[in-house]
Amino acid sequence: MANTPSPIRETDDDARALARRLLAEARFGALGVRDPRNGAPHVTRIAVAQAPDGRPLTLISALSSHTAALRADPVCSLLLGEPGARGDPLTHPRITLGCRAAFTEHGTDAYSKLREHYLRCHPKAQLYIGFSDFCFATLRVGSADLNGGFGKAYALTPADLGLRS
Amino acid sequence: MANTPSPIRETDDDARALARRLLAEARFGALGVRDPRNGAPHVTRIAVAQAPDGRPLTLISALSSHTAALRADPVCSLLLGEPGARGDPLTHPRITLGCRAAFTEHGTDAYSKLREHYLRCHPKAQLYIGFSDFCFATLRVGSADLNGGFGKAYALTPADLGLRS
Repeated sequence: MANTPSPIRETDDDARALARRLLAEARFGALGVRDPRNGAPHVTRIAVAQAPDGRPLTLISALSSHTAALRADPVCSLLLGEPGARGDPLTHPRITLGCRAAFTEHGTDAYSKLREHYLRCHPKAQLYIGFSDFCFATLRVGSADLNGGFGKAYALTPADLGLRS
Repeated sequence: MANTPSPIRETDDDARALARRLLAEARFGALGVRDPRNGAPHVTRIAVAQAPDGRPLTLISALSSHTAALRADPVCSLLLGEPGARGDPLTHPRITLGCRAAFTEHGTDAYSKLREHYLRCHPKAQLYIGFSDFCFATLRVGSADLNGGFGKAYALTPADLGLRS
């Protein structure tokens, strides 16, 4: 592979704008965690909103495997950007965020504040957002791999996404 | 958590049928691998077809980070089943497969056979299936976590999916 040119393009404003759009428009994503039993990758669907500070925000239940995994090890990965029903799914833009989860516990003032914000994005979460097994996880982004389609790969920083690292 | 009842339901034929449908209908999925640099989870989109033996099959490029990761460590996780654009994304059924990747290399007879099969599912892959940096990865399923929506979680076996483990 020594002679293979890097597939990563130089970051430009179009790449930053696409990445910010994927982050802003995401309503769900695929979360990768480490299974605490054996360290294997484990991918699940989570609902996603954008927290007031711009970071990805999710509401998760203690009954879900990903919550136990994040409690044991907050290092995770989040894939955002969904293909449509038609065409080659690999031509649709998506972004992989390398993250650490930070929890906001049920019953705290911080939870109440995030609750109102989250319900504006996900009004149907009203059905379960009051259950005591739920908590919020804010995902602190450390790296971002943007794939805008074949030959359009970029390695972005939190700052490129408008985020503090 | 000692008094929390298990959220996993007893497997029934409806659960098996739903899981088999998710596997048969998937055209893409979210693949979780371990980043060979630091072991962190890393989730990317892959195109998916069902191999002749029923297992998930994907066509991946040596230029993609997931391919290097799978070459270093074939243990991976695949999330299948996509929400629609409306409603609570967590009410849509999905399945997480715990897998090991097995490769079929470009230029082999086995590759030629899978090529014809794969193109029937993904005709637009004709554009790149001949490139020498591509290989097939068949995902051998060891475990399956089905989530049919809130309160509908099942732990399935490869046999429940009609697969050899």
